[in-house]
Amino acid sequence: MSHLDETMPVSSPVIADHSPLALAQALIRCPSVTPEEGGALQWLGGVLEEAGFTVARPRFSEPGTPDIDNLYARIGTGSPYLLFAGHTDVVPPGTLEAWRHGPFDGAVSDGLLYGRGAVDMKGGIACMLSAALAFVAERGGAFNGSIGFLITGDEEGPAINGTVKLLEWAKARGERFDHCLLGEPTNPARLGEMIKIGRRGSLNGKLVVHGRQGHVAYPHKAENPIPGLLRLASALLAEPLDGGTAHFDASNLEFTTIDVGNPATNVIPADARATFNIRFNEGWTAETLGAEIRRRLEAAAGNAVRFTLDLQPSNSPAFLTKPDSFTDLVVEAIETETGLRPILSTTGGTSDARFIKDACPVIEFGLVGETMHQTNECVAVADLDRLTAIYGRVLLAYFAVASEKGEV
Amino acid sequence: MSHLDETMPVSSPVIADHSPLALAQALIRCPSVTPEEGGALQWLGGVLEEAGFTVARPRFSEPGTPDIDNLYARIGTGSPYLLFAGHTDVVPPGTLEAWRHGPFDGAVSDGLLYGRGAVDMKGGIACMLSAALAFVAERGGAFNGSIGFLITGDEEGPAINGTVKLLEWAKARGERFDHCLLGEPTNPARLGEMIKIGRRGSLNGKLVVHGRQGHVAYPHKAENPIPGLLRLASALLAEPLDGGTAHFDASNLEFTTIDVGNPATNVIPADARATFNIRFNEGWTAETLGAEIRRRLEAAAGNAVRFTLDLQPSNSPAFLTKPDSFTDLVVEAIETETGLRPILSTTGGTSDARFIKDACPVIEFGLVGETMHQTNECVAVADLDRLTAIYGRVLLAYFAVASEKGEV
Ligand SMILES: [Zn+2]
Ligand SMILES: [Zn+2]
Repeated sequence: MSHLDETMPVSSPVIADHSPLALAQALIRCPSVTPEEGGALQWLGGVLEEAGFTVARPRFSEPGTPDIDNLYARIGTGSPYLLFAGHTDVVPPGTLEAWRHGPFDGAVSDGLLYGRGAVDMKGGIACMLSAALAFVAERGGAFNGSIGFLITGDEEGPAINGTVKLLEWAKARGERFDHCLLGEPTNPARLGEMIKIGRRGSLNGKLVVHGRQGHVAYPHKAENPIPGLLRLASALLAEPLDGGTAHFDASNLEFTTIDVGNPATNVIPADARATFNIRFNEGWTAETLGAEIRRRLEAAAGNAVRFTLDLQPSNSPAFLTKPDSFTDLVVEAIETETGLRPILSTTGGTSDARFIKDACPVIEFGLVGETMHQTNECVAVADLDRLTAIYGRVLLAYFAVASEKGEV
Repeated sequence: MSHLDETMPVSSPVIADHSPLALAQALIRCPSVTPEEGGALQWLGGVLEEAGFTVARPRFSEPGTPDIDNLYARIGTGSPYLLFAGHTDVVPPGTLEAWRHGPFDGAVSDGLLYGRGAVDMKGGIACMLSAALAFVAERGGAFNGSIGFLITGDEEGPAINGTVKLLEWAKARGERFDHCLLGEPTNPARLGEMIKIGRRGSLNGKLVVHGRQGHVAYPHKAENPIPGLLRLASALLAEPLDGGTAHFDASNLEFTTIDVGNPATNVIPADARATFNIRFNEGWTAETLGAEIRRRLEAAAGNAVRFTLDLQPSNSPAFLTKPDSFTDLVVEAIETETGLRPILSTTGGTSDARFIKDACPVIEFGLVGETMHQTNECVAVADLDRLTAIYGRVLLAYFAVASEKGEV
């Protein structure tokens, strides 16, 4: 790994306790609200380096966006290469007074670890780290294959100087991964319920219907855009976009806002605006979906309604990682530890898996997401231990299978 | 008229030129943007007093609204009593740079008098005044009947301390009118086209559809209020309210705004709001119409949509002054002077006629409204002369008929 460009010096703090709780607490205590690194990646790099990983800390920048710290670490040079991925940045804590314990204190109370990032996803990183440190330590650093960490500080932000650039950066240095496990919180309520094997795509659209301003008492001299907007918006909702696929729910359109902003009760407004978001399945690309939306609007508008449709460029395609032996291996590790057979889901919001899927097959499994982004985000310490055990079983099975068959 | 309570002293400026142009210029030069009196009523009172009218200047107030100056003047004690009505307040001039001539200069150019209020309705008041001064002067103040002026400074504003209170004030002093001619600009394009014999009513409503906020990726956990709003709003527009009546157009509903105000493209909003205005004919009262709106909304909502309807109290009922001999007299004066036979209309916005109609039959006829409330509001000097001639013929016919038959 001598080719890795260590763009930032890495200090080596000593942390004696490699339990997931201790590691999660150390991460939570770094106030890494996007775009602040907050010491989190610095600390993580130190721990990994001490364990024998080669660590790089590329920092990416782009005009108009904040510079972002990232981390890439690898141990081993052979294949198969299992990559753990995630982010140390967190959303803001919100009202501090509403927290039972400080969002950056890492306090434990009644078996729960509190703090911003407890489940999304410093807790998940702590479990990956704890499992990897134990796996590596037990083998004295010697095993057939490679383990890597690809961790960004820009997942909750614009995601411009994060995983996308980090993957390009690694690719340019010849790094090739066989499988990736992303540690986002995937379980709705109980650890073990759900793996994500893909994500729906996301497309935003702005619809403006144009009219002509006038006085409500003289409607024939004006052209009210609101009835046209009602007609076009209703047309978009009239028929389902599709019926879903084997692994995906039906694509879904939600209007997020309609705004006219006319304060005068005696004035017919000039324009009316609506914004919508579509979460779409593998049956569509952003292009085919955009064309269908435009077709529906044009059919409803005819010559009667003048409109402008602005479809925003989307970097969130729908994608599916076809279930394979790697998926089976993760499912079995989960079932052994939790007694639950996880469903293979493509629901929920987007994640960095949408970028990683171009580098290698990626599946997601992490903690219980119930409290993510909320006040009093917390995780059961028992869940941290069980997720660590699951990741440990994945490592064992992944490299054991590899040593037997030569591939997963 | 010794019972009139002269609440403000009236000075007596001398204006030698009683042409409608000179009188209109004098009024335009008073900057009487609502609620400012701007010297307009003060000047008008002086001219009327000099001509023999008894003048009162009641000032009305109400907590939370600006105090407003008004004017009531009468000459004669007998019947019939013909009341001229109007307002000296004007809407703001807007961008001063966009005016060819200063909005309060009263400049004449190419046969047009420019200024805020030129047609709405200082020009109309000048014509009434010029006609009445001439009529009174020719008779040395002696004729069978009474002529009055009921002029407010609060027509373009909230209309709280204006005509409503002035009518109550006059009624309390025993003043009784036989007919009223309101000088609002009634002609769309040419002087003589249109008399208004009634006005549609006006009703404002606010519709709120209630949902439950959530993330666009988890629509089943949220409840998007926008589809419900589309459904309810479309239901209000689906069927016409009525087909119109002999003297009225069909009632008409216009949505004036829809606002959700949600800036986040990944959030389903909690509520969606729409505001509408209905201009309704004599087939409805605000109460029966409100009940019909509520019935339509409830039918469309069923159990699926939760909504709140807020109907704002309306002081704008639909009303019709049944065409009679007074209308005929005005129509004939117009036809004689202009060669046009005016149509008897109930179109357009509301006016203070909605209040006056409870005191006596009221019809409206004034200048051409094309430039009202606009930059470069202006009136043809020829129109001022012709409208003065029309009002003069109305006075002659009204009191001539009265002296022959004892009533109109
Ligand atoms: Zn996350
Ligand atoms: Zn007016």
